[in-house]
Amino acid sequence: MRVKNLIIERGNIMTDITEMLVRRGYLWQSFEIYGGMAGFVDYGPLGNGLRRNLEKLWREFFVISERAVEIDTPTIGIEEIFIASGHVSSFTDVAIECEKCGKIFRADHYIKEKLGIETEETIEFVNEVLSAYDLRCECGGKFKEPENFNLMFSTKIGPGKGKNGYLRPETAQGIFIDFKRLADYFREKLPFGVCQIGRAYRNEISPRQGVIRLREFNQAELEYFVHPGEKRHPEFEKYRDFTITLVDKMDGEHNITLGEAVEKGIIAHELLAYFIARTAEFLLKAGLKKDKLRFRQHKDDERAHYAVDCWDAEAYTSYGWIEVVGIADRGDYDLTRHNQYSKEDLSIFIPYEEPVKVKAKKFIPKMNLIGPKFREKSKAIAEAIEAYNGEVSDGKIILEIEGEKYEIEDTFFEIEEKEEVVYGERVIPHVIEPSFGLDRITYSILEHSFDTDIVDGEERRVLRLKRWMSPVQVAVLPLLSRDPFVSKADEITLKLKKAGFFTEKDDSGSIGRRYRRYDEIGTPFCVTIDHQTFEDSTVTIRDRDSTRQIRVKEGELERVLRELLESERDLMEFGVPFK
Amino acid sequence: MRVKNLIIERGNIMTDITEMLVRRGYLWQSFEIYGGMAGFVDYGPLGNGLRRNLEKLWREFFVISERAVEIDTPTIGIEEIFIASGHVSSFTDVAIECEKCGKIFRADHYIKEKLGIETEETIEFVNEVLSAYDLRCECGGKFKEPENFNLMFSTKIGPGKGKNGYLRPETAQGIFIDFKRLADYFREKLPFGVCQIGRAYRNEISPRQGVIRLREFNQAELEYFVHPGEKRHPEFEKYRDFTITLVDKMDGEHNITLGEAVEKGIIAHELLAYFIARTAEFLLKAGLKKDKLRFRQHKDDERAHYAVDCWDAEAYTSYGWIEVVGIADRGDYDLTRHNQYSKEDLSIFIPYEEPVKVKAKKFIPKMNLIGPKFREKSKAIAEAIEAYNGEVSDGKIILEIEGEKYEIEDTFFEIEEKEEVVYGERVIPHVIEPSFGLDRITYSILEHSFDTDIVDGEERRVLRLKRWMSPVQVAVLPLLSRDPFVSKADEITLKLKKAGFFTEKDDSGSIGRRYRRYDEIGTPFCVTIDHQTFEDSTVTIRDRDSTRQIRVKEGELERVLRELLESERDLMEFGVPFK
Repeated sequence: MRVKNLIIERGNIMTDITEMLVRRGYLWQSFEIYGGMAGFVDYGPLGNGLRRNLEKLWREFFVISERAVEIDTPTIGIEEIFIASGHVSSFTDVAIECEKCGKIFRADHYIKEKLGIETEETIEFVNEVLSAYDLRCECGGKFKEPENFNLMFSTKIGPGKGKNGYLRPETAQGIFIDFKRLADYFREKLPFGVCQIGRAYRNEISPRQGVIRLREFNQAELEYFVHPGEKRHPEFEKYRDFTITLVDKMDGEHNITLGEAVEKGIIAHELLAYFIARTAEFLLKAGLKKDKLRFRQHKDDERAHYAVDCWDAEAYTSYGWIEVVGIADRGDYDLTRHNQYSKEDLSIFIPYEEPVKVKAKKFIPKMNLIGPKFREKSKAIAEAIEAYNGEVSDGKIILEIEGEKYEIEDTFFEIEEKEEVVYGERVIPHVIEPSFGLDRITYSILEHSFDTDIVDGEERRVLRLKRWMSPVQVAVLPLLSRDPFVSKADEITLKLKKAGFFTEKDDSGSIGRRYRRYDEIGTPFCVTIDHQTFEDSTVTIRDRDSTRQIRVKEGELERVLRELLESERDLMEFGVPFK
Repeated sequence: MRVKNLIIERGNIMTDITEMLVRRGYLWQSFEIYGGMAGFVDYGPLGNGLRRNLEKLWREFFVISERAVEIDTPTIGIEEIFIASGHVSSFTDVAIECEKCGKIFRADHYIKEKLGIETEETIEFVNEVLSAYDLRCECGGKFKEPENFNLMFSTKIGPGKGKNGYLRPETAQGIFIDFKRLADYFREKLPFGVCQIGRAYRNEISPRQGVIRLREFNQAELEYFVHPGEKRHPEFEKYRDFTITLVDKMDGEHNITLGEAVEKGIIAHELLAYFIARTAEFLLKAGLKKDKLRFRQHKDDERAHYAVDCWDAEAYTSYGWIEVVGIADRGDYDLTRHNQYSKEDLSIFIPYEEPVKVKAKKFIPKMNLIGPKFREKSKAIAEAIEAYNGEVSDGKIILEIEGEKYEIEDTFFEIEEKEEVVYGERVIPHVIEPSFGLDRITYSILEHSFDTDIVDGEERRVLRLKRWMSPVQVAVLPLLSRDPFVSKADEITLKLKKAGFFTEKDDSGSIGRRYRRYDEIGTPFCVTIDHQTFEDSTVTIRDRDSTRQIRVKEGELERVLRELLESERDLMEFGVPFK
């Protein structure tokens, strides 16, 4: 009963929102005139504006406020990268194909939908479930043997057989493989952050959830490189008393300060806690509702192959709780792998605060004895002695040269003991990664902002976007669609555009209808040019949420709008109430 | 001799620039640690900043100042789109493969390089040249039969056999297939513009020219939809006297006003001329040099399959003249094709200013006669009579029904003549497309800005970027790398970042070295905190180009920098000269 209600409710909200989003130019089904394709979405003029504003806000939070830079690397990557990163072997879902109708499903989703069972993503487990429950396709057919399906889109670079390439499954890899250049840019001083904002791809088996499960999506990822022993952030103190809702990996729910969460070991370290706090601040500023936001720790069997600890920011929507941000401690996994596979040294030199003196033994081969004894092997033996850094036992050392063992007596070498000064060490940094799904955040903002109320006895649809997020921040409305109203509106529109506001002029339909139109797309302020404008050079400003109006001098308009749009201050502070 | 010199010169400039661009973090070879791959480039922190500034400037010119919006559609497209657009059949180069070593070349480039011949891109022509000149591979091997190679990257969407998809060869198609939604957004009122900024792809056969010939590149495209009979722009008058260098399709060079160029028929119409002017303004504002910029008309055999007329903006670089923008009149090609292939009506209704009365003939079948005569065919015949709009000759009309012809005598129908009022017509708009290659423009800006001069008796490298384009606009330099200098620098840096300037703090190395470092990356202003700062709360501002300095009050810094960065005003107007 509960479930049914939820579905019905969800159906209503989604129908209303989706209808509005499509009609008004927020989001469209891609390739619509050719029948569309699941997993792709078009951002119409308003959706694009909203997402661009989100990106701008993200840069302010995660690039400009940090010791961080943004780079931009290709969406196509050569195969070597994804072999090293593990995506060629591990970025897979289990697929099941019907023998009869040929339909292919993602096994865990299908099993969850039909049986309500959470499935491990392994062929063995899926096989077991299929036979234990005699699970069939919706058409009644049996399933073939399950298969691992790699979720990267593949392509060929160049003519002929070409070179294998993949569309990147995350922007992060482009940053890791540039690590040497980036460390150079930051003069090898940790910590530093590097971000990318751009497309990533995931060739989903059978996506069904609109904007929530896309095959082509937009990520903003920050890779924050730190010394493994220093997972702290200078600004953490600001957030020690920040209260937040956490769901830990044992499903325990906490309403707790971040300071406590770190002390109790719920969050692994201060740096993760810092990014959780910044993420929360960012999402709230972008327009998510506080009571529909939580942070959930990945369970041990849920974490990606590279993650040491991971927290998701989740937003509550009509799809239930959905992941919108992942904040992972990826450790040194990525740099170590690329180090191994590319044979490039991806460590950086960390100087000690004070140089350290250490005693070092140096083994010096006696060539005059080694030569006659070991003949053609003597060069290899001598080198192995020089490289030896173990102990001498029973007057002998044991060397291994090309798989063979040699016992060398201490008559063949001398040992020099000396003090060396060590200035630092080479370290492969760890990386903390806040990774944002911009499409899901955009959609969640739209759902959380969608509202109806009663104005003048009629139901009104209103999108309560934050003022700084609205794709159309100001609508300029001539009361009548003729001069001098229209030309004055054009003049003001141009001025506001030049001042950097997203501004639209609209002269079609009654003023009431136009107000409703802009309420529906989330425009916070309408500026109206009326008869009085030509008497005393004033215009009205109308507030979307309260529908109240003030009159201000035309010359004051830009300043007033700027203060209003950068804050959440009450319109009524800025002028004489009107009507 | 001339050619040789050019190559040597070019070698020097390119080596110098490339070395700087890589070392300082403008552009990096993609996948460098895995050996790299031709046709891909990474934007380092500075390159990314410069390109993002270029995009911002582009939006100001081509979106905010026009009746235009921006949308964002997927980079992957389903096959149907590119069959309709003609890319599946026509977006090809001729490839030649060596029988012996297996190397594959792009035929026209190889023939041009080896024989100096401009080649038509057809298999027949290439075959002819190969045999006429007995052209061999560099290894001495013979070439196999030439083949058309499609330049789209292909991929499969979904599991199993999947659905054919391609990476978009231009952003434009995403706009055309959304035309119905877009026309709706603009309430079917022409003209309107729709743009996209994003990735496009071209699977080049053997790219060799660095950033100039990329397999993955960044486009900014505006599709400006107009009534076919109204290829004008309200703002053209501003540009009538704008003088410009044009090279027409017969290679005639003109230094001419745009007004004249349209009158003489060199440029097809005012709307193309308008966009040529705006493009020139934009490129100059972005930092291209006027004497290294020209507009060249496509020759008749050079135009793309969809273009009616096309002009390229070309920048002179060490690669010679390179296309950086294409401004094409695509006519109704794209909408007509998508109309045909998708079966969706992509015309819009254009009301006449005044309704028009027209005389219409209406053919009315006489069912009582048709029934007995034509029996089971009578319904089809009657419908065909109703739909007929031709003449009656010799007392008969001829109908075609499912391939068969019927002669119908005029006894079987009546003709009613009546006046109808027609309010408008359905029209498939034409589209004018200014299409910008952002990577080439970025690179050209860097080349045109690269300079050396002598300062204090030493050669100095300086990147004379426009102030509003610099990825680092302000460097804040504490004279000494200790407190209170550093903490004051941090405080000012934070303030300037919050004010929206791209700001960096740098405290490593002598002040002279730091100035040189910021000169080299093109930072227009350095702010220095010195001893006097703590006496009278002033700082110095240093101008990159003149190396002169002024002192200003710390409280004035933000205002002064804003005025300087938005203009090209002389630093010396803003404060007391220093030193």
